[in-house]
Amino acid sequence: MKIAVDAMGGDYAPEAIVKGVMLAREKFNDIEFQLYGKEAEIRKYLTDDRNITIIHTDEKINSDDEPVKAIRRKKQASMVLAAQAVKDGRADAILSAGNTGALLAAGLFVVGRIKGIERPGLMSTLPVIGSTGGFDMLDLGANADNKPEHLVKYAILGSYYAENVRKVAQPKVALLNNGTEDSKGNELTKKAFELLKATPEINFIGNIEAREILEGRADVVVTDGFTGNAVLKSIEGTALSMMKLLKHAILDSGVKGKMGALLLKGGLKDLKNQMDYSKHGGAVLFGLKAPVIKAHGSSKEEAVYATIKQIHTMLESRVVEKLVAHFEEE
Amino acid sequence: MKIAVDAMGGDYAPEAIVKGVMLAREKFNDIEFQLYGKEAEIRKYLTDDRNITIIHTDEKINSDDEPVKAIRRKKQASMVLAAQAVKDGRADAILSAGNTGALLAAGLFVVGRIKGIERPGLMSTLPVIGSTGGFDMLDLGANADNKPEHLVKYAILGSYYAENVRKVAQPKVALLNNGTEDSKGNELTKKAFELLKATPEINFIGNIEAREILEGRADVVVTDGFTGNAVLKSIEGTALSMMKLLKHAILDSGVKGKMGALLLKGGLKDLKNQMDYSKHGGAVLFGLKAPVIKAHGSSKEEAVYATIKQIHTMLESRVVEKLVAHFEEE
Repeated sequence: MKIAVDAMGGDYAPEAIVKGVMLAREKFNDIEFQLYGKEAEIRKYLTDDRNITIIHTDEKINSDDEPVKAIRRKKQASMVLAAQAVKDGRADAILSAGNTGALLAAGLFVVGRIKGIERPGLMSTLPVIGSTGGFDMLDLGANADNKPEHLVKYAILGSYYAENVRKVAQPKVALLNNGTEDSKGNELTKKAFELLKATPEINFIGNIEAREILEGRADVVVTDGFTGNAVLKSIEGTALSMMKLLKHAILDSGVKGKMGALLLKGGLKDLKNQMDYSKHGGAVLFGLKAPVIKAHGSSKEEAVYATIKQIHTMLESRVVEKLVAHFEEE
Repeated sequence: MKIAVDAMGGDYAPEAIVKGVMLAREKFNDIEFQLYGKEAEIRKYLTDDRNITIIHTDEKINSDDEPVKAIRRKKQASMVLAAQAVKDGRADAILSAGNTGALLAAGLFVVGRIKGIERPGLMSTLPVIGSTGGFDMLDLGANADNKPEHLVKYAILGSYYAENVRKVAQPKVALLNNGTEDSKGNELTKKAFELLKATPEINFIGNIEAREILEGRADVVVTDGFTGNAVLKSIEGTALSMMKLLKHAILDSGVKGKMGALLLKGGLKDLKNQMDYSKHGGAVLFGLKAPVIKAHGSSKEEAVYATIKQIHTMLESRVVEKLVAHFEEE
């Protein structure tokens, strides 16, 4: 399998990207990597070329570039060339830690949608707190407005992912809503509920509230992109604020507090690991003709490695091909 | 001032309610309390009748009653009688820790809306993490679907509250959105943004993301009830899960961990206090002709006391009368 990697995207590019690729190369013999970006900068971190091809380009998309414009105008940008390789069949998947909006645009306009999926969604595997497991949630913000029909597609996409990539049998699908009773919801979720109930190929378990999602009651949670974005950012913001508070609490309680923290070190590290969702890989722009994966902008080499591992499983399980077949049958 | 108290609502009623009222009575000489509920049960916790009148009723609304039906059928329920007292001018405000939906219904159908406010919103003062401050957010779920115009009303309501009750000068109002740039949003928030920008009586500072609200960049955050509900529950769920994880981390690390936790005790207690938003009082069903306040279902006497203190400030500042005047002028 061939993975097109945007070597220039992300806060620690190209170093973290190149080192993550080299980590993955040790583990997976069956991947050929294409690194798109400035050859001289990439070579600084590359020990040798085994299973790696560099495609040199000087242009790149910056984090503050306007996404759609950037994709249209910077035709030689590392991200655009990587997407083009997927479109032309020279690569099977694309990975970038760069500008999220630009990657969404590259995915939609260059790689292209699966027939039958009007509105691809952004999906991540979020951690179930207190366990090693996770749940897949989409749309996390690829779209600002969704129709009830889109949520049904997200349920199917998420189910295929949970089953094929995370190996969950008959994944439980829930609809994020403002109450758990069947009658709850706004205009969108009330209609989506009825449609989901009438979709035989998913294991729909009903409504779920935002308070419960982290407890792992569902394997797949579907929502519109606006709400999904707000929920994801609320979880991140609360977790970050609490970690910061905890740090202050330790620092402010002087020597006693620092000793306490030292004794608790293992436990506190576990807490941080539990909240770290990069261990499950990156965010998938799901519903496209090939895996288009966004690693977090602040990804270090381990997160890049985890994302390559995720792409490896996606390609190995042929989850996108299965989805194409599913929607073509309809 | 007269406060009608539903003595039978909440997980620890009537004990926590009666004891909270007695705490508040020590502090505020100018409040006459009306306690609605079973007299014999209330008297178990009451030391004397100073500034307290008991209005006996056997009927009460349960937490699992269907809200609108309960309000219509249980005419003698403690909550309904308390709301009726406000409607008839025998009391100035109502406090309940009972069924939220039923209190919303009692507020709307018995107390009634301020002229000009189509859709009252549920508002709470949420904590700014790492400070003693807070921000007011609405609608937290009184409505499932909101129109852009409703969000403008919420901005005005929230501004009046922040200024009059929390004594914030020129409160900064932000719109919860999926990005901070002016052009961001879904259909609802894009329209709301334009309307808010054109509302001279508020200090509108633009869009805010869910990640930033806990940092206190805004004094008032407006959103539709569906998103507000999802964000509030995400914050609660994440905070609860993390506290649980932290507890497990301590327990699992044995004697060493327990010693560490002991040394950190003060700091961990601060962390818990920081996340406790009942210190700012209860949730206000805002936009009604009188203060209708929902204390958290799990309120103990301190939370009931904090909520009475909040109602005292609302009545003293005449914030509702000022809002009535504001909207009548329009």
